[in-house]
Amino acid sequence: MSDPDAAQRAFYTAFESADLEAMTAVWADDPDVLCIHPLGAVLLGAEAVREGWRLLFTAGEAMRFRVRVVAAWREPALATYTVEEHIEAPSAADGHALVLATNVFRLHDGQWRMVLHHGSPAPRQRPPVASVH
Amino acid sequence: MSDPDAAQRAFYTAFESADLEAMTAVWADDPDVLCIHPLGAVLLGAEAVREGWRLLFTAGEAMRFRVRVVAAWREPALATYTVEEHIEAPSAADGHALVLATNVFRLHDGQWRMVLHHGSPAPRQRPPVASVH
Repeated sequence: MSDPDAAQRAFYTAFESADLEAMTAVWADDPDVLCIHPLGAVLLGAEAVREGWRLLFTAGEAMRFRVRVVAAWREPALATYTVEEHIEAPSAADGHALVLATNVFRLHDGQWRMVLHHGSPAPRQRPPVASVH
Repeated sequence: MSDPDAAQRAFYTAFESADLEAMTAVWADDPDVLCIHPLGAVLLGAEAVREGWRLLFTAGEAMRFRVRVVAAWREPALATYTVEEHIEAPSAADGHALVLATNVFRLHDGQWRMVLHHGSPAPRQRPPVASVH
């Protein structure tokens, strides 16, 4: 993606559609990329990250996201977002879950790629007031 | 601090010593700084972040940290670290807790300051093999 906002949108689109190839394309193909699903272990490196998404997508639950950016910082080749992910998912207690996530993207050869997704459960809060997705 | 590694060390030193003034000095004094303690709510802005530390430090539990950097990215004015915090704390189940944290620092007027701390509980893993602290 040519800008980090677009890369983040592509991440959530791939997540919602459980599209492993699209998700893989979002990430940098590097040994030091890192993914932490809520309460999960550290998945380090592109292969481990991909396998994590494969397992999650194989579980097969349809999820819908509303994403609210709480804070973001951007430099010419590095961008971070911390977001509230308001998720509709059948397995959640009342069909709704709130995850806090920090996403980091780097500019690789002219393309913004994800290098970190760190998600964690959050206490229930107000509904989103803005959305990037 | 004149480099982000030193800023991160100062963060953990302030955390261990429950020193609110030292912790406040680590952070940027900005309305968009963000702190998420494990399973806690989003604390947005320097005042809310400081109040969160005040409450945590008032609880008064002595904690010792061993910090292992899992991945880090750095640009001239923005640096991110994702770390394992191996914490010795009396209230933990067996005196030991593992927290995963993403820390972000920005260069403000020649000084590196923290702008994000996002902590979350993790499954127990291997002991640290390296330390920044």
